Amino acid sequence: MISVDEALKHVLDHTFPLPVTSLDLSAVLGRTLAADVTSDIDSPPHDKSLVDGYALRTSDLGRANALFKVLEEVTAGETPTCKVTKDSVVRIMTGAAIPEGADAVVMLEETEARGAEAVLIRRSSLTVGSNIMRRGTSLRQGDTVLEAGATIRPLEVGLLSEIGRSQVFVQEVPRVAILATGNELVPSDHRPKSGQIRNSNGPMLTALARSATASAVDLGIGRDDRDILAQLVTEGLRSDVLILSGGVSAGVLDLVPGVLEAAGVEQVFHKVNLKPGKPLWFGVVSQQGQTLVFGLPGNPVSGFVCFELFVRPALDRLAGRTASSAGRRRFRLACEHTHRGSRPTYYPAAWEESVDDQPATAKPLAWRGSADLRSLTACNCLLVLPAGDYTLGAGQWVDGLVI
Amino acid sequence: MISVDEALKHVLDHTFPLPVTSLDLSAVLGRTLAADVTSDIDSPPHDKSLVDGYALRTSDLGRANALFKVLEEVTAGETPTCKVTKDSVVRIMTGAAIPEGADAVVMLEETEARGAEAVLIRRSSLTVGSNIMRRGTSLRQGDTVLEAGATIRPLEVGLLSEIGRSQVFVQEVPRVAILATGNELVPSDHRPKSGQIRNSNGPMLTALARSATASAVDLGIGRDDRDILAQLVTEGLRSDVLILSGGVSAGVLDLVPGVLEAAGVEQVFHKVNLKPGKPLWFGVVSQQGQTLVFGLPGNPVSGFVCFELFVRPALDRLAGRTASSAGRRRFRLACEHTHRGSRPTYYPAAWEESVDDQPATAKPLAWRGSADLRSLTACNCLLVLPAGDYTLGAGQWVDGLVI
Repeated sequence: MISVDEALKHVLDHTFPLPVTSLDLSAVLGRTLAADVTSDIDSPPHDKSLVDGYALRTSDLGRANALFKVLEEVTAGETPTCKVTKDSVVRIMTGAAIPEGADAVVMLEETEARGAEAVLIRRSSLTVGSNIMRRGTSLRQGDTVLEAGATIRPLEVGLLSEIGRSQVFVQEVPRVAILATGNELVPSDHRPKSGQIRNSNGPMLTALARSATASAVDLGIGRDDRDILAQLVTEGLRSDVLILSGGVSAGVLDLVPGVLEAAGVEQVFHKVNLKPGKPLWFGVVSQQGQTLVFGLPGNPVSGFVCFELFVRPALDRLAGRTASSAGRRRFRLACEHTHRGSRPTYYPAAWEESVDDQPATAKPLAWRGSADLRSLTACNCLLVLPAGDYTLGAGQWVDGLVI
Repeated sequence: MISVDEALKHVLDHTFPLPVTSLDLSAVLGRTLAADVTSDIDSPPHDKSLVDGYALRTSDLGRANALFKVLEEVTAGETPTCKVTKDSVVRIMTGAAIPEGADAVVMLEETEARGAEAVLIRRSSLTVGSNIMRRGTSLRQGDTVLEAGATIRPLEVGLLSEIGRSQVFVQEVPRVAILATGNELVPSDHRPKSGQIRNSNGPMLTALARSATASAVDLGIGRDDRDILAQLVTEGLRSDVLILSGGVSAGVLDLVPGVLEAAGVEQVFHKVNLKPGKPLWFGVVSQQGQTLVFGLPGNPVSGFVCFELFVRPALDRLAGRTASSAGRRRFRLACEHTHRGSRPTYYPAAWEESVDDQPATAKPLAWRGSADLRSLTACNCLLVLPAGDYTLGAGQWVDGLVI
């Protein structure tokens, strides 16, 4: 049986970034930038005032309460027409261009107007450049300001707008289809009869894919019938990723691998040395474009763990993200934890941020088996526990995968 | 001038959760649950097998390699018809209901089939309950499983599906209108002429509101003209929140407060003892429903800081979220930092997670003035620096607001 690392390598070896598309700036929040972005402007475009006040020559200051002549008033968006000369000033608003001749701005609060054409300046000294932001301080024309692979957050939207990128090259988002299989499943608006359970995997996996910025469609429930499954699989293979849930164990009705192979999906691996999630199946097919096919175990916790370990990194790569959306870090155990078993385990836990000098801690959840979604809602990380029988004491370091 | 805490209290005193609406489960990811949710089922609904294998009576085990009679086969979704009696077993698949009489399941890997009707069990002992998950272990009918105010993440979507909530009561999301004002502004697809800059605040604030799960509409640019502003303000007041950017300083063209008052918006406060962001204006109007009106300073960094300090908490409360989406925490300074000035400062910084026993650190950004969006893209927290002239050494603790 291959290891988690080998399985992930197989997945990523078959995963390539999707094509690039150009979108309106208003539609790119959360998307991945597909090309480096350079500025077409200097910012600010001119020396500008950081305050409301008077632009002046520092050499004219020397005593407090001196009277100056006001040449004109310049507001943001206007171009100064006068040059500041000896003992004259230009009234200037925040953001407005500094007039020629001036080398500092005195704040309004340090002045007293004397009619429309004169002002008394109470301050006697200012440094050259005071309250002025120089042209190009923030960025210069031709500078690379954002790099391909970056996630576009609100601040990047502002910056892209400032440098005139009303259309932005971004990676297409992965299209994901989700198919839950199993005769025991009924939709969530049905009352389960004896032996039945509601389909929680389909909606959960659809939401997980959306949380990884994919465009996800829930194909509903595929009964354990070769023809029905084959038809739904064909529909799912039109997406970039098909996620199936259930039907990959060794049970008599575990039909999924056979149906996938009949649909032309080439198996890359089946089974990973992992708990929970051992039955994971992965394959690829190239018809109109390539489709990655994940056969996840039907137990919700197993499916969740497999999604985080294998599907999310694949979606990150398809979407062109250079940084994984799930990070590794180390925690101190909040309580003693005993591990038993021959498989490396990814154990659901709740971690808490470090407080002051206390490091981050993680508390393994009271996990009542791999179908226990209720306990799992407290999960925000998976502890990475090596194979073997051992007990870790409270305070010991453990590796974790932050969800 | 009021303090940041007083200003925030004023904002929240005027902010009330929006009405409740019922949505399909497929549409509630990221929304806030508006009512406690109880389970309508036991989960699992019956004692069920955690593995593929044979359901048996532990009292029949005693020696390895004993032969048992196979009564029937039960797969997930089926109801067992036979009772397990002495030296008989039922072949059972993962998830299927445990037949009457059986008290444990032996894994398939520990058995050898002897034709269709007999099986050799290599294992000689099992504990009562082995490989069985008892009815109601995960949750019991009537249990409150999720509480009002919780954010619905993918795991909650799975749980809601399991307990039959195909329709979910959630808070309505705030409708937010954004209006950037200023004669110097041009849209991002225009090339700025002398004295002009592109409108980065409108798109940034729209994206910030969306990142706080609001439904946001960008009203574009309002020129510094009383009639044009009045018309756009009227349009914006149809939303739950109107955010204006610019026009609230002391400049001659800072028309916003007057236009808002003429539109019936009652000023709650103007100016906060804060840097950057001092000119912040806040008011409310009740026409068809209440609208909160924020007049943010026009400098992008000031606008960003005011959004995080005042608008985001208001959006959290409108959306019914009980936990703020921005958290306070303490960092060690990554380098020396000097503060000068009489106003408490919220200084953009980049913080890094604690690593092992090293606490989280924050590095103040090289901030070139309140219009420097490019530097700000590295910001993921604001350091809270009290008023005064002082220098903090590397390694000293500072309070921060995580973005």
